[in-house]
Amino acid sequence: MDIYCARMKKVREALRRANLRVTIVSDPVSIGYLINRHVAHVGERLIALAVPAEGEAVLFVNRLFPICPGEGFRVVYHDDTDIATAGLAAFLPAGPVGIDRFLYAQFLIELLEQRKDIMPKIGSFAVEQARMIKDDAEQEAMRLASRLNDEVIAKVPSMLREGMSELELADMLLSEYKKVGEAWAPLVAFGPGAAEPHHVNGDTPLKKGDVVLIDAGQATGGYNADMTRTFFFGGITDEQKKIYEIVREANRLGRKAVKPGVRFCDIDAAAREYIASCGYGDNFTHRLGHSIGLSVHEEPSVCAANGDIVREGMVFSIEPGIYLSGRFGVRIEDLVLVTADGCETLNRYSRDILIVGEEKGREG
Amino acid sequence: MDIYCARMKKVREALRRANLRVTIVSDPVSIGYLINRHVAHVGERLIALAVPAEGEAVLFVNRLFPICPGEGFRVVYHDDTDIATAGLAAFLPAGPVGIDRFLYAQFLIELLEQRKDIMPKIGSFAVEQARMIKDDAEQEAMRLASRLNDEVIAKVPSMLREGMSELELADMLLSEYKKVGEAWAPLVAFGPGAAEPHHVNGDTPLKKGDVVLIDAGQATGGYNADMTRTFFFGGITDEQKKIYEIVREANRLGRKAVKPGVRFCDIDAAAREYIASCGYGDNFTHRLGHSIGLSVHEEPSVCAANGDIVREGMVFSIEPGIYLSGRFGVRIEDLVLVTADGCETLNRYSRDILIVGEEKGREG
Repeated sequence: MDIYCARMKKVREALRRANLRVTIVSDPVSIGYLINRHVAHVGERLIALAVPAEGEAVLFVNRLFPICPGEGFRVVYHDDTDIATAGLAAFLPAGPVGIDRFLYAQFLIELLEQRKDIMPKIGSFAVEQARMIKDDAEQEAMRLASRLNDEVIAKVPSMLREGMSELELADMLLSEYKKVGEAWAPLVAFGPGAAEPHHVNGDTPLKKGDVVLIDAGQATGGYNADMTRTFFFGGITDEQKKIYEIVREANRLGRKAVKPGVRFCDIDAAAREYIASCGYGDNFTHRLGHSIGLSVHEEPSVCAANGDIVREGMVFSIEPGIYLSGRFGVRIEDLVLVTADGCETLNRYSRDILIVGEEKGREG
Repeated sequence: MDIYCARMKKVREALRRANLRVTIVSDPVSIGYLINRHVAHVGERLIALAVPAEGEAVLFVNRLFPICPGEGFRVVYHDDTDIATAGLAAFLPAGPVGIDRFLYAQFLIELLEQRKDIMPKIGSFAVEQARMIKDDAEQEAMRLASRLNDEVIAKVPSMLREGMSELELADMLLSEYKKVGEAWAPLVAFGPGAAEPHHVNGDTPLKKGDVVLIDAGQATGGYNADMTRTFFFGGITDEQKKIYEIVREANRLGRKAVKPGVRFCDIDAAAREYIASCGYGDNFTHRLGHSIGLSVHEEPSVCAANGDIVREGMVFSIEPGIYLSGRFGVRIEDLVLVTADGCETLNRYSRDILIVGEEKGREG
C-alpha cells in the first residue's frame, strides 16, 4: 500500500471509531497530505475533500484550481457562478457529518441551509490523528529542516550590530532562510519587545544591554522547523542570567519529561512547575508548546488542558519563557521527536548563555 | 461623530434593515476598521466582535492579544484553557444571529452546541456594506497606494534580463514594494506560465519571445494597490499583438461601463462580451474584478452573478485576461474609484504595448 492509501485508511479508521460516516477536509495542507497533490491556497473559495468511512473520496473544488486526477479520489468542479457547496450538499449523508475546524462559516451555513438533516461535528481529528504520527520519511525531513534552522541561527551573533533595527535583522534572517527552504517571517525582538510573546518586529534599534529574542524557522521539503534562542547584546546583568538559567532548566525538564505514554499536560507541568517554584509562574503566560509538521501549528497542543497521551513519532515544540513586562523576556524553544523510550531533540544549536558584542576592553 | 462611530452606526443600520439583532465580526481587518485598534492576526485562536443592533459592542479575545480599551466597545478576555466561545454563547440572543463568513467552523459548531436556540445567518454583509464605500480619506489613501504601485511597475523594463528566473524578478519587485508599504508577494509569470491565472512563481528562465505578466501591489497606510501589466520580452508576434489589443480594449470597455447605478454584472458583461465577440470567450476564465481596500479582495465581486448596484466611493479592479494554455496569456488590471458620474482610474502606468530588450540591430 502506498503512503497516501495508508494515510487515507487511517482517516477512515478514525471516522469509524467516532461513528462518523464522512468528514469534510478543507485545509489544503491536509488535502495534499491525503491525495499526493500540491493543492493551491484558494483564498476565499471552496475546496473540500469529502472522505467517507466507506467508499471513494470526492474533492469539490473551483474550476480555477484544476487538480490532476489520481487514485483513491475523484474530482467535482464548480464555477464562481455556482453555489459552491451544492455538490457537497448532494453528496453528504444525513446525520452527523465531520467538518474541518478551519472551514469558513460561510460554507457551513450554506450547507446547513440546503441540508437541514445534517448535524455538523468537528471532524478534523481524523486527519489530525494521522498527521500527528510522523513516518520515517517525515521524521527524516523534520531532522533536516531543524538542522538547517540551526545553521541559520548560528549566524545570528555575526549579524548583530549596535543600532540596527529589528526589521533589518529580520530581513537578513529571511534571506538566509530563503536559501534553505520556504521561509516564514522571523520574530525578532530587542530589549522590552522580548517581553511580548507575540511581538511585532519594528524600528527599535539594538542597544548595548538588550536581550535579542529570535523565534524563527522555515519549511524544507514541506516540513517545518521552528526554534527560539535568546542572545545578550553587549553584556548580561545578574537578573538576566538568573532568568535565562531558569528558562533553560525549564526547557531541559520539559524535554526530559517527553516519552510515549505520558500526557501532554504532564510535560507542560514539568516545565511550568519549575518556573513557578522559582517565583515566575505568572510570567510564563502561554502553553509549553505545539505540534508541528507540514504546518507550523498542528494538533495536539502541549498545554495544561490536554490530557491526551504522547506517542512515538510525534514532533512538537518545548518553548518555556519568562516575560518581564516593559523590561525583557527570555524564551528557549526546541523541537523534539518522540522515540520509543524518550525523545530526540531536533535542534542542536547551543543553549549556553550567548553574549555578543561585549566590550572586553573594560575588563582589562 | 468620529469616523469609527459613524462606521459602527452604518453596521447597526444594516443589521436593522436585515432584521438581525446582532452580528459577529471575526475578520481582524474589519474589527480594526470598526474599533480603531490594530488587531493582531490571532491564528487559530478566537477573536470576535459582537455588534448588536442596539447597545454596546463586545470584543471576545484571547488574553494573549491584549486590546487597548476604547469608546463604543468593551473587551472580554478568555484563556487558552477556556472554551473560547463560552462568553459569546452567554452574550448572544436567541434566534437569527449574523456570523462572519470567515469565522472558523470550529467556533460556529462549538457555539451551536452550547446554544441550540441560535439560528446562524451569514452576517458579514453589514460590515462589508460599510467597507465598500470609501470615505474621502480612504479614497486619498487608495490613490496614493496605486500611484506608488505605478512607480514600482515603471521599473520593470529596466529589471528584465534574459535568463533571470521568475523568482529573481519577484524578489527584486518585493524589495521595491517594501520601500513603499507592506508588500504582498508579486505574481510573476514568463511565457506559458502567463496562461495560468493563478501561476506560482518558479525557476523558469526569461527567454526572448516570452510575455512577462506581473500582478502585484502593496498596502500603503493600510490600503491596497493591485495592478497587472503584461510586457513583451525581445519582440512580439502578430498573434500576441492581436490578443494584447483585445484585452486592452476589454479593459477600456470595462472601465467605461463603470458609473453609479449600473450593475456589477453589466460591467463584467461589457468586457466579457467584447472578448467573446473576438472569439476568445472561453479563454477569459475568471471574473472581471474584485473590490479592494483594507483587504486585497473585498466584496462586492465584479462578476456575471452579481446584480448589485455600483455606488459612488466604491473601488474595484477591472482585470480582463485571455489565456492560451501552454503558450501565453495577457491580463491588464487597473483599479477604478467610482465617482459621481463615472470613474477615476487609479493606475496611470501605460497600457501601450511594451516591448523590452528588442534586438533593434536586426531591423537595420
